[in-house]
Amino acid sequence: MITVHHLNDSRSQRILWLLEELGVDYEVVRYERDATTRLAPDILKQIHPLGKSPVLKDGDLKLHESGAITDYLIRTYGAGKLSPEPGSLNYESYVEWLHYAEGSAMLPLLLRLYTSRLGDAAAPLMPRIDSETENHFAFMNSEMTGREYFVGSNLTGADIMMSFPLEAARARGILKSYPALSAFVERIQARPAYLRALDKGGHYSYGPAET
Amino acid sequence: MITVHHLNDSRSQRILWLLEELGVDYEVVRYERDATTRLAPDILKQIHPLGKSPVLKDGDLKLHESGAITDYLIRTYGAGKLSPEPGSLNYESYVEWLHYAEGSAMLPLLLRLYTSRLGDAAAPLMPRIDSETENHFAFMNSEMTGREYFVGSNLTGADIMMSFPLEAARARGILKSYPALSAFVERIQARPAYLRALDKGGHYSYGPAET
Repeated sequence: MITVHHLNDSRSQRILWLLEELGVDYEVVRYERDATTRLAPDILKQIHPLGKSPVLKDGDLKLHESGAITDYLIRTYGAGKLSPEPGSLNYESYVEWLHYAEGSAMLPLLLRLYTSRLGDAAAPLMPRIDSETENHFAFMNSEMTGREYFVGSNLTGADIMMSFPLEAARARGILKSYPALSAFVERIQARPAYLRALDKGGHYSYGPAET
Repeated sequence: MITVHHLNDSRSQRILWLLEELGVDYEVVRYERDATTRLAPDILKQIHPLGKSPVLKDGDLKLHESGAITDYLIRTYGAGKLSPEPGSLNYESYVEWLHYAEGSAMLPLLLRLYTSRLGDAAAPLMPRIDSETENHFAFMNSEMTGREYFVGSNLTGADIMMSFPLEAARARGILKSYPALSAFVERIQARPAYLRALDKGGHYSYGPAET
């Protein structure tokens, strides 16, 4: 049985979405952020020394990095779904987005999040952070313009990995300037599998706007 | 012909090392950081809209994310070298380190680099950055203790991807507390392929200590 150790309001929400798209059985062990610090609880260190979420267990395998979890689940349980054909140019683009989501797209968001705790004292850094944000989000928006998905003509793991940085950016008002990315987030958040995953994961601040 | 668009003193140095380990022909197009800002030159935007390095070109394929480049080159030109057997537990661990290098290990280093420009004004953030640094480097050091390589008993792409965060950490004095990681860096920097790549890439601040 697949087990996902899941922290609310976190990047692990997309792993639940992925499992719902794959239609495989899994169980969720939920953890809650500390109400004051917003940090993961220490008990997660009993699951993996990094104390982070997601952690995926599947038999003897334990994985903690979202991109690797996504790659593994799709190779193992995808039966051709959610991935371009290995060896194709689209496959290399798919792998690249899997890496880009955490390796590049999250950085300007995390810099903004961390430095926001400094208030006005962070002002000297903001031009650089703004310029990195614009660089990456203009690139992503351009790649998505005229398309429905990041790679090819179907949903892939690339879209699932990219969902978190884009949802986090929307919550900070950044997507207002990037209409193709805004439309992408609305499109994925309407999927039945996405909505089922929301039920499984508990509170998620970056989900569809409540009406 | 494989072409690497390479920026000096950057994470793209490890792609040259990888190509030397693989023993495939490639050409290097070198770019130099701005002497004052240390940023990549604008001309790199003509190669890829992100304006970053490395960019790999191989026929119709163009890739910009180091982890994806490493994965692609080893799958395409490795002939079984530098990767565990696909489908094995070690293979999943290998893919995880490919992601971890940029998706996790670099973050505390980049937070430190960015906030250092604020001087004392960044002091309120330092306990959190120090704690994230300790969390990740203690984990990596523990994983490397008693081992020669991150996965299995041979050099893989995981070691090559991990070289950059570890070399960058050493340059900031962080590895002094992590002897297994220090020894790893010395071990890889003695490899003939690593040294050949240094010759190809031009100045690299994070290479072997000059004597």
